[in-house]
Amino acid sequence: MSEEDLEVKTDDPNTIDTFTNKPRFTFHRKVSLTLQRHLNNRRTSEFIAETFGTCLMIIIGLAGGAQTKFISKDNFYLSDNLTPNILAGLSLTISILVVGKVSKAHLNPAVSLAMLFNKQISILEFFMYISAQFLGAFLGALIVFLIYFDAINSYGPNKYSIDTSLIFITNPNKNLTVLGIIFDQIIGTAIYLVLILALTDKKNVKFTPEGTAFAVGVALFVICSTMGYNSGSPLNPARDFSPRFFTFIAGWSCDVFKIGNFYFWIPLICPMIGSAIGTGIYWLIISRHLAQ
Amino acid sequence: MSEEDLEVKTDDPNTIDTFTNKPRFTFHRKVSLTLQRHLNNRRTSEFIAETFGTCLMIIIGLAGGAQTKFISKDNFYLSDNLTPNILAGLSLTISILVVGKVSKAHLNPAVSLAMLFNKQISILEFFMYISAQFLGAFLGALIVFLIYFDAINSYGPNKYSIDTSLIFITNPNKNLTVLGIIFDQIIGTAIYLVLILALTDKKNVKFTPEGTAFAVGVALFVICSTMGYNSGSPLNPARDFSPRFFTFIAGWSCDVFKIGNFYFWIPLICPMIGSAIGTGIYWLIISRHLAQ
Amino acid sequence: MSEEDLEVKTDDPNTIDTFTNKPRFTFHRKVSLTLQRHLNNRRTSEFIAETFGTCLMIIIGLAGGAQTKFISKDNFYLSDNLTPNILAGLSLTISILVVGKVSKAHLNPAVSLAMLFNKQISILEFFMYISAQFLGAFLGALIVFLIYFDAINSYGPNKYSIDTSLIFITNPNKNLTVLGIIFDQIIGTAIYLVLILALTDKKNVKFTPEGTAFAVGVALFVICSTMGYNSGSPLNPARDFSPRFFTFIAGWSCDVFKIGNFYFWIPLICPMIGSAIGTGIYWLIISRHLAQ
Amino acid sequence: MSEEDLEVKTDDPNTIDTFTNKPRFTFHRKVSLTLQRHLNNRRTSEFIAETFGTCLMIIIGLAGGAQTKFISKDNFYLSDNLTPNILAGLSLTISILVVGKVSKAHLNPAVSLAMLFNKQISILEFFMYISAQFLGAFLGALIVFLIYFDAINSYGPNKYSIDTSLIFITNPNKNLTVLGIIFDQIIGTAIYLVLILALTDKKNVKFTPEGTAFAVGVALFVICSTMGYNSGSPLNPARDFSPRFFTFIAGWSCDVFKIGNFYFWIPLICPMIGSAIGTGIYWLIISRHLAQ
Repeated sequence: MSEEDLEVKTDDPNTIDTFTNKPRFTFHRKVSLTLQRHLNNRRTSEFIAETFGTCLMIIIGLAGGAQTKFISKDNFYLSDNLTPNILAGLSLTISILVVGKVSKAHLNPAVSLAMLFNKQISILEFFMYISAQFLGAFLGALIVFLIYFDAINSYGPNKYSIDTSLIFITNPNKNLTVLGIIFDQIIGTAIYLVLILALTDKKNVKFTPEGTAFAVGVALFVICSTMGYNSGSPLNPARDFSPRFFTFIAGWSCDVFKIGNFYFWIPLICPMIGSAIGTGIYWLIISRHLAQ
Repeated sequence: MSEEDLEVKTDDPNTIDTFTNKPRFTFHRKVSLTLQRHLNNRRTSEFIAETFGTCLMIIIGLAGGAQTKFISKDNFYLSDNLTPNILAGLSLTISILVVGKVSKAHLNPAVSLAMLFNKQISILEFFMYISAQFLGAFLGALIVFLIYFDAINSYGPNKYSIDTSLIFITNPNKNLTVLGIIFDQIIGTAIYLVLILALTDKKNVKFTPEGTAFAVGVALFVICSTMGYNSGSPLNPARDFSPRFFTFIAGWSCDVFKIGNFYFWIPLICPMIGSAIGTGIYWLIISRHLAQ
Repeated sequence: MSEEDLEVKTDDPNTIDTFTNKPRFTFHRKVSLTLQRHLNNRRTSEFIAETFGTCLMIIIGLAGGAQTKFISKDNFYLSDNLTPNILAGLSLTISILVVGKVSKAHLNPAVSLAMLFNKQISILEFFMYISAQFLGAFLGALIVFLIYFDAINSYGPNKYSIDTSLIFITNPNKNLTVLGIIFDQIIGTAIYLVLILALTDKKNVKFTPEGTAFAVGVALFVICSTMGYNSGSPLNPARDFSPRFFTFIAGWSCDVFKIGNFYFWIPLICPMIGSAIGTGIYWLIISRHLAQ
Repeated sequence: MSEEDLEVKTDDPNTIDTFTNKPRFTFHRKVSLTLQRHLNNRRTSEFIAETFGTCLMIIIGLAGGAQTKFISKDNFYLSDNLTPNILAGLSLTISILVVGKVSKAHLNPAVSLAMLFNKQISILEFFMYISAQFLGAFLGALIVFLIYFDAINSYGPNKYSIDTSLIFITNPNKNLTVLGIIFDQIIGTAIYLVLILALTDKKNVKFTPEGTAFAVGVALFVICSTMGYNSGSPLNPARDFSPRFFTFIAGWSCDVFKIGNFYFWIPLICPMIGSAIGTGIYWLIISRHLAQ
C-alpha cells in the first residue's frame, strides 16, 4: 500500500469554503484524516489483524465445541472427545495462516510473554498484542453467540444456565482441588510452550511458515487431548477470560465468575507462570545446545 | 493435443461420392466435425472438467453422509459428527487435485463470484463455471442415487421420505428462525471465503498447488464442523440446489422445495451475499496490507 | 549388489574332489547357485518386495478391521465407521513407502491392469505383479489369523462362523441386488482408478514420491468411506480373493465361497472392468488435455 | 555454547582466602565445577534430551489414554479406539521434533537396538540411550500421576486398583495364551521396526527430518490400531516397564508385576527379539537391494 493513497489534497474545491477561503468541516476532516492515517498505519493493521486472528480462532474453537454439544444433546449421544480437540488445533492453524503475514499471530498472551522473554517483541508490542487478543476473543464469543442464538435459546428450560455457559468458558472438574487446578494449568502451559518454542525455532526444526502453522495446531490438539480433562485446558488467558466477560454481559449473570469457587483468575494468571517455566525448560534442555 | 489430429481429409475416397464427385454425408460429417472441434476446444474441456470435478465432489460429499447414515441406522448407532465432515473436506481436496490442471476447480458458485470480484475470471467465464457446477452437482446426485438405489429402497416403509431426502439436501434445524438461517448462511460463507481467499492467495501463503488443495479441504472441514449445526452448512448454491432438483425429479415430490417453509432459496442466494462480504473482509484486513 | 558377490570359484579346494578331480556335490551346488542367483536377481527381488508389500497392506487392513470388531464386541460398542477406513488408507500409504523403491508397489491387480493399459508395464510384468499380489494377500491373511488366533478362538460358540470370516472377506449387504453389487463394484473401482491415475500422474500433480504415497492413501480412505456400505469396497481382487481362499483352507469350509449367492466372483472380476472404465474416463476428461 | 562460558577464574578474589592465599570452599567448588562441566558436555546434554524426549512421549501417550478413560467413565461412554492411538502416534512425532536436534530421539530401547545392529550407534551409546529412556519413562509416569492425582483419587472405591493401573501399564487380554502374547509382541515389534527402518532410511525414502517425525508417528499409530488388541502394543520396553515400576512405588503394590501371570517380562524382552527380526527382514527384502 503506497503512501500516495493516503494523501489528501486539502485545496480540493470540495473541501475549501469558497466564501471564507478556509477549509470546510475542518474538525470533521481532521478526525477523518487522522482516522484514515491510523487505519493505514502498519501498527494499526497489525493490531486489527491480531484482533481478527484471535476472533477467528475463538469462533472456530468455541463453535466447534458448541456444535458437538448440540448434536450430542439432540441424539442423547455422549461426549465426543476427539472432534472439539481437532477443531481447537485447527482453529490455531487456520488463524495463523490467515493473519500470519500481517500480524505475528501469537493469538495468546502466554505466547506473547514467551516471545517477550526471547526478545522477539518489545514491551510495547507485548501490551499491544495482548490487548488485541483480549478484544478479538471477546468479539469471537459475540459472533458464536449470534450464530447459535436460536440453538442456545431452545437449549432447555433455563437457557442462561451453567451448562450453556460452558460453550464459552472452561470450568474445573468437580473432584479437583485448588492446588490440583493450579498445578494442571501451570504444567499444561509449560509443556505447551516447550512444544510451541521447539516447533517455531528455526534453529531446531526447518518447517516452512505454513508447516509451522500446522505443527503448532498439532501441538495444541495434543495438549487439549491429554491435559484437557481437569479443566478443559485453557492455556490461553484471552481464550478463557474474554468469553467469560462476554457471557457476563450477555445475560448469564456473575455466576460465570463465581463458578468453581472464583476459579476464573486461575486460567488468567497461571498460564503466564507456565509460559515462563516452559520458556526456561526449552532454553535449558534444547535451545542453548543448538548452533546459532 | 495438436490441431493435426482434428484435420479431416475431405478428399479421402471414403467420404467422396465417386459418382457425383461430392463429399458423402455432408450434413452428418459437418455435425461430427463441429462436435469433434468443440470437444477438443480448450473452453469445452474446461467446462467438462469443472462439471466432472463438481460431480466428483458431490459424489464423495453426499455418499459420505449417506454411508454414515445407513451404518448408523443398521446399528442403532447415533450421529457421527466427524466422518461426514472429514469427507466434505476431502471431497473438495480430491476434486481439485483431479481436475485442477484442466479447469480452475472453483466447484462452487460462491467461490467463482469471489474470483469474479478479484478479476481472476471474466463475467462470461463466471457463467460458464456456475453452469458447469450446477450440472456437475446434478450428475453427482444421480450417481449417488444409483450407488445407493437398493439401500434407499430398503430404508423404511416410505423410501421417498424427508429422511432419505436429507442424503441429498440440507434442511434447517427445527428451532431456527428465518433470520437465524439467513445470518447463519451469510456469516458462514463469509468466513469460509476469507479462509479460501487467504489460503489461495500467493501473496499471503506459499503453498504448492497440491498443498493448497489440502488446505482448502481443511477450511471446508472446519466450517462444516463449527457452523454446520444450524442448517448443515451448504456454503455452495450448487451443492444444495442441484441435488434438491434431482430429488424432485427422482420421485421425492415437490416436498423437497416446500421443506422448512420454502427454505430452498436461502442456500441459493445467501452464500453469494456471504461471498461478497468475505471478499471485502479479506481485502480490508489482510490483502491490502500485503506487498505485491 | 554387484555381480561379483555371486561368483563362485568352482576350483575352490572344498568343492573339488581331489581324487576324481571333479567338483563335489555337483547337483547340490547347482541348485544352491541357481537359487542364489535368482534371489539376487532384480526381477526376483521385485517379486518378493511386491509380495511383501501386499502382505503388509493386508495385515494392516485386515487387522485394523479385526481390532475394531473385537473392541466393539468386548464393549457392546457399535460400529466404528472411521477407524477401519483410516487404516485401509494408511495400509496402502505405508506399504508403498516401505517397498516402493524395490517394486512398483501397485499392490492391486486392478491398478496393475491400468498400468498395463497405460503401457507402464509389459504383459509379462503384469502377470508377475498380480501373482505376487495374490500370494502376498494370502500370506497377510495367514499372519492376521496367527496374531488374532486366540481372539478368534474365544470369539463365540462357533469360532468358524460367517461373523469371524468377515475379518478376512467382504460380503454384500443383505438388501443388495446382484445388479446393484456389480454396478457398485464397477463404479467404485472406476472412480478409485480415476483418483489413483490423477494423483500419480506427474503431468497432473507434482507430489514427491512420499507425497504420492499419502495422497493415494487418502483416495482409498475416501472410496472406502463413501462407497463401502454396499459390499465393503473390495476394489482389489487380491484383497478379497486370497484371504477368502485362506479362510477356506483354515477351516471356515466352502461357505466362504457360497456366501451371498456365490458373490465371490464379483470382487474378482468387476474391479478389472472398473479399472478399464476409470482409465478411459481419466484419459478422456483429464489426461489428453495435459501438456506432455 | 562456547567453551569460554565454562571457564572459571580460580584466582577470582571471592574464591581465594586472602589470609591463607588458598582457594576457598575447595571441595564445594570442585563439585560445582565438575557438575557444570558435565552439564554442558555434549554427551550429558544428549542424555538429558533423550530423557526429556522419552518423558514427553510418555506424558502424551499415557495422559492421552487417561483422559479418554476418565471421560468414558464420566459419561458411561464406551471404549474409544481412535483417540488414544492417534495420541500414541503424535507423542512420538512431537517428542522427536522437540529433542531430535540434541539427541538421536530413539525414545525406545528396541529402536536403539536396531540402530546398534545397523552400526549407527556404539555399544556405549546404546547403554546411555536405554538408560535415558528408562529414566525418562519413569519421570513421565510420575508427571501423569501428578496431573491426574485428583482424578485417580476420585476414580472409585479402590483408587489403587488394577483398573487405574492400566493408565500406566499394559496387560494382555484375558483369552490370550502365553505363546499368543509372545508371538504378538515379537511380530508386532518386528513389523514396527520394518516400518521405522523403511521410513528413516534415506536410501529408501526422501523425507525431511520433520516429515520423518510425522511418518514414524503414523507408523506407531498404525501398529497400535491394528495389533493393540491383544496386549495394548507395548513395542517399547521402557514405555511398559518404567511406568510399571513407578506404579509399584506409588502405591499399587506388587500386583502390577504379578498381573497376567507375571506378564511384565514379556514386553521387556520380546520387543528386543522383534527388533532383531524386523532389522533382518528389512535388510533382506528392502535394504540390500537399494543403491548406496
